[in-house]
Amino acid sequence: MSEPTVVETSFPVRYAETDSMQIVHHSHYIVYFEEGRSAYARARGKPYSQFEKQGLFLAVTEIYTRHVQPAFYEQLITVRTWIAEIKSRSIKFEYEIIDANTKAMITTGWTKHMCIDRNGKITRIPDEWRDWATN
Amino acid sequence: MSEPTVVETSFPVRYAETDSMQIVHHSHYIVYFEEGRSAYARARGKPYSQFEKQGLFLAVTEIYTRHVQPAFYEQLITVRTWIAEIKSRSIKFEYEIIDANTKAMITTGWTKHMCIDRNGKITRIPDEWRDWATN
Amino acid sequence: MSEPTVVETSFPVRYAETDSMQIVHHSHYIVYFEEGRSAYARARGKPYSQFEKQGLFLAVTEIYTRHVQPAFYEQLITVRTWIAEIKSRSIKFEYEIIDANTKAMITTGWTKHMCIDRNGKITRIPDEWRDWATN
Amino acid sequence: MSEPTVVETSFPVRYAETDSMQIVHHSHYIVYFEEGRSAYARARGKPYSQFEKQGLFLAVTEIYTRHVQPAFYEQLITVRTWIAEIKSRSIKFEYEIIDANTKAMITTGWTKHMCIDRNGKITRIPDEWRDWATN
Repeated sequence: MSEPTVVETSFPVRYAETDSMQIVHHSHYIVYFEEGRSAYARARGKPYSQFEKQGLFLAVTEIYTRHVQPAFYEQLITVRTWIAEIKSRSIKFEYEIIDANTKAMITTGWTKHMCIDRNGKITRIPDEWRDWATN
Repeated sequence: MSEPTVVETSFPVRYAETDSMQIVHHSHYIVYFEEGRSAYARARGKPYSQFEKQGLFLAVTEIYTRHVQPAFYEQLITVRTWIAEIKSRSIKFEYEIIDANTKAMITTGWTKHMCIDRNGKITRIPDEWRDWATN
Repeated sequence: MSEPTVVETSFPVRYAETDSMQIVHHSHYIVYFEEGRSAYARARGKPYSQFEKQGLFLAVTEIYTRHVQPAFYEQLITVRTWIAEIKSRSIKFEYEIIDANTKAMITTGWTKHMCIDRNGKITRIPDEWRDWATN
Repeated sequence: MSEPTVVETSFPVRYAETDSMQIVHHSHYIVYFEEGRSAYARARGKPYSQFEKQGLFLAVTEIYTRHVQPAFYEQLITVRTWIAEIKSRSIKFEYEIIDANTKAMITTGWTKHMCIDRNGKITRIPDEWRDWATN
């Protein structure tokens, strides 16, 4: 398989995302991953909000995260997102969250999704997504 | 007006709700208020989830909170909720969040809501809610 | 009093910030306000994270929000933030959250804060903040 | 290895935890897992807040979740938590989130943690935790 297309999006850590350990609470990396997917689809010219308006949804089936080092309030972070695997009805995204300046690794992980319609029925992922994976 | 009916619900503060100041982040009191409203409707025998299934929604129009002292991880808190004012198409809830054991005041506030239908049209609040306010 | 300095910051609504009504959950506007304050301090050259490293904290004492119309997933929003009032030991910020493109009003509100030190003792706000209010 | 001790805690899904798909947003299961850990330590007589007061912290190093079916607003859910593996300086918790009434599976997963002290130095997990695993 050729090299996957990687989309990057950067933003500062919000105060509300920190916890008593004075680091980003681990649940927020899941939200950062989701922001990575949103940025990915926007960069490809098909915002996920349009995808939903067509009656398609990417339901999350599995998540894995590995926490290398903590992120802190106001740290500028970059989420790097790519499609690691795509089948007719499922898709796997991979992510790296790094410090936007030093490029130091913070968190890595992946999410798996099934494509469903408004009634929750499993459905084919639109063909264009397959093209996105490597172009 | 006679004394309003007050409904209480108690739960421990979650770790994820704390921030770098090692206290509950102020945005979570808004969620605790909402839990207070949910507990109120459940206690009255008409869960808010049923209300929504009938196609009615209480859209938030205004919120006010006053923070007397912070709450901490694992502190058992009680949300006290009552209807402060009810008109044909709007409703005002008031809240006190207190320590469940010492009864010390943590946060007080109120929220105002309009009743809307599935299309966002402003609608009459069901009559039973009016009875709830004082019975 | 002369016109206050207004700082603007813009970002898209995240999917995780929506709720079952398919609009931004009202608790997240509180977080957007906080992002507004963070952007304000960064724009003035004194990030709030530095403020905290000096051992000073702006504890939230009161919040008010008014919800004019809902915001939706992936909508680009702008938070406009300014200092509405500043006393020796307290400060009031005001906010407008608007659609970044149409400028339509979404939510307005204000927050009040006391300046405290590491021990929770009420403390003077640094003089530079007073200058910020109108310059 | 003998059967692990399982601790259960139950609570209703909050409205703020739902998203535009009208189901619990997947990031909240991570918070429910954390509530499971908190309930586990409380049930064992050593609340995690006391653990922290002793200067010990369980930093999250890895998370895995598998989503079997969605949870909905006001659904009463039960988090079942147990220690799956414990070494001198790391610990692995496993979780099942089920419907409290029907016992239908919603989400399963695990989290791995390192024990650290206030300075972030990796440290031995207190011996009592080892006893907890199977008693």
